[in-house]
Amino acid sequence: MTSTGDTARFMFMKGAGYYSRSTQGAKDVIDLATPLVLEALTRVEPQRGVGTFRVADFGAADGGTSLDMWRRALAELRAAGPARPIELFYTDLPGNDFSQLFRTVLGQTEAKTYMDEVENVFVYASGASFHDAIFPAASLHFGFSANASHYIVETPCKISNHIHMVGASGAVRAAYEEQGRRDWERFLLARATELAPGGRLVLINFGIDEAGRFLGATTGVSMFDAFARHWRNMAEDGVITREEFAATNFPQCYRTLEQFVAPFKDAASPVRRAGLRLELAETRIVPCPYARDFALHGDAEAFAKAYLPTLRSWSEAVFNRGLDAKRDVAERAAIIDEFYRRYYDEVIASPGQHRMDYVHAYLICAKEP
Amino acid sequence: MTSTGDTARFMFMKGAGYYSRSTQGAKDVIDLATPLVLEALTRVEPQRGVGTFRVADFGAADGGTSLDMWRRALAELRAAGPARPIELFYTDLPGNDFSQLFRTVLGQTEAKTYMDEVENVFVYASGASFHDAIFPAASLHFGFSANASHYIVETPCKISNHIHMVGASGAVRAAYEEQGRRDWERFLLARATELAPGGRLVLINFGIDEAGRFLGATTGVSMFDAFARHWRNMAEDGVITREEFAATNFPQCYRTLEQFVAPFKDAASPVRRAGLRLELAETRIVPCPYARDFALHGDAEAFAKAYLPTLRSWSEAVFNRGLDAKRDVAERAAIIDEFYRRYYDEVIASPGQHRMDYVHAYLICAKEP
Repeated sequence: MTSTGDTARFMFMKGAGYYSRSTQGAKDVIDLATPLVLEALTRVEPQRGVGTFRVADFGAADGGTSLDMWRRALAELRAAGPARPIELFYTDLPGNDFSQLFRTVLGQTEAKTYMDEVENVFVYASGASFHDAIFPAASLHFGFSANASHYIVETPCKISNHIHMVGASGAVRAAYEEQGRRDWERFLLARATELAPGGRLVLINFGIDEAGRFLGATTGVSMFDAFARHWRNMAEDGVITREEFAATNFPQCYRTLEQFVAPFKDAASPVRRAGLRLELAETRIVPCPYARDFALHGDAEAFAKAYLPTLRSWSEAVFNRGLDAKRDVAERAAIIDEFYRRYYDEVIASPGQHRMDYVHAYLICAKEP
Repeated sequence: MTSTGDTARFMFMKGAGYYSRSTQGAKDVIDLATPLVLEALTRVEPQRGVGTFRVADFGAADGGTSLDMWRRALAELRAAGPARPIELFYTDLPGNDFSQLFRTVLGQTEAKTYMDEVENVFVYASGASFHDAIFPAASLHFGFSANASHYIVETPCKISNHIHMVGASGAVRAAYEEQGRRDWERFLLARATELAPGGRLVLINFGIDEAGRFLGATTGVSMFDAFARHWRNMAEDGVITREEFAATNFPQCYRTLEQFVAPFKDAASPVRRAGLRLELAETRIVPCPYARDFALHGDAEAFAKAYLPTLRSWSEAVFNRGLDAKRDVAERAAIIDEFYRRYYDEVIASPGQHRMDYVHAYLICAKEP
């Protein structure tokens, strides 16, 4: 039941394409939202315009999780407006693996891409923050973003005794919510500027639903609480310092549906005055694919070996950043490995208590025609 | 005079931004060509058009060598057409360091960028090959490419007893020249499709001038001959195998000015029929900055320590690729270090014989209005 020998095994997936391969659930979320995308694209009426049709994927990482969605969307776009060139822009921050992104979409990996299926498609990348305008005014016809808008520009303060704002309360919680409010408005205003008249946005945002559920916190053990507990225990055990624990804070804000729709409520609000209106806002849960598999096979070890990499793929950088700058690479690797090994041991011991269900707020926005 | 201890020192520059920092000469070439760029931009008449003005830097690597040129060009463009958004696209192959590119141009390094100086500028990247169209038809107003067009799609054959086509003769030389001819025409046809009517290209191409001179082969020891000699000696000494020597071939073709202008000579040629015509074609030599410094300071060791990194920055990948796939990382590093150490020792012993003067063919092309 101990897992020292397993540590190496459950980390074998790291490397090129690691993010996409270990985030089957994130891909499920996008695949299931594809009908929303296709419907929103129809409303842009690509057959009525002329010239280049420009679409964007904001916060796209390595492009793997949205590849199938874009394959379908581009095929529909091509059918609707057969003569229009299509420009697809993937955006993320400069630290993103753009080489892997280009290899994936240009057909230099095993992933099935659209480049040889849909004619007259041109793919580009931007390294600019989606909190600012990434495109010239009124040049974007359709924007998509999934699993990205919860990232805030900066953490407003440290979170005592937790690592994520979902575990914070009082003034700390309020500070994160205020940062989240400002950044969400900034995100929407940037998109309002970029969108052409009649353009649409489909936004799939990590959030908190009407029942208070959020990512990894639907039933059983809350994932962020487990992260905080293991990290705190490592501080208590002297593996990391208390300062390192305190310095570890996800630069994220999970918003409620009410917070997501707030900028659209008042006709005099900056977002409404910028010409953006809301066409759809709802929450949905997409079940954890690894927990679903476990329910079928019942193998705790197989479950933990599939489950931990998906958690690690997007959380590791945050824990690494919390560590003292003076620690060297080997020391960091040992600490991080130990951290996920503790979580792994917990999952092996109580597999039925763990599931990273996806809780999202789905929004469709339109730019006034 | 031996240099085992120096090896580590002359390689200290590797890492982020290594290419740009160690290619002062490549930057000199672009800086000196900036008047050509500004003049060509004037001829596009940015003040007459409306909408987005789109420019591109083909084969831009990490964007460092052309950063100052674009600063000046974008400032002039902004002054000429104050209300037009400008889109600047950097292109290179997927293996390029796009993260470093974005950090550089977005102002996240020490390099002085244009983003805070010129308003309404948007920067993007493409990972597509410049041998194919990278932009929709007629959407590009100005294209620039420096130190890139000598890369060919594939090596047509191995080069016996040398590592670069400049050291080949007979059928092998002819095969590289034919590949170079096809790829040059393909490059031009792709640009002809992309360029808007009246658009311009400024191309700064490694080539062979009227006196038979080319990069690193103007006077003294020819750089490519020295590369071939040291690599061959390492095969003879058993450090690498003869198969590895034979498998090491730069995927490049250095063209003569006559070869560069050939596609424009006949009005019935594909390039002319595609609407591209030649406005300027000339060769120029830009002196090696390291040899120039050596002429002033006379310090052989200081010269070699500055000179070898510039050679290594763009050549190392080719020698690494020539090595057997079964060799591990440490073995490869030792071989490559040994190779440049031998060259370093030669430079220390005869510093006055070494200089990487830049020999280029400068072309300006116009798309018919």
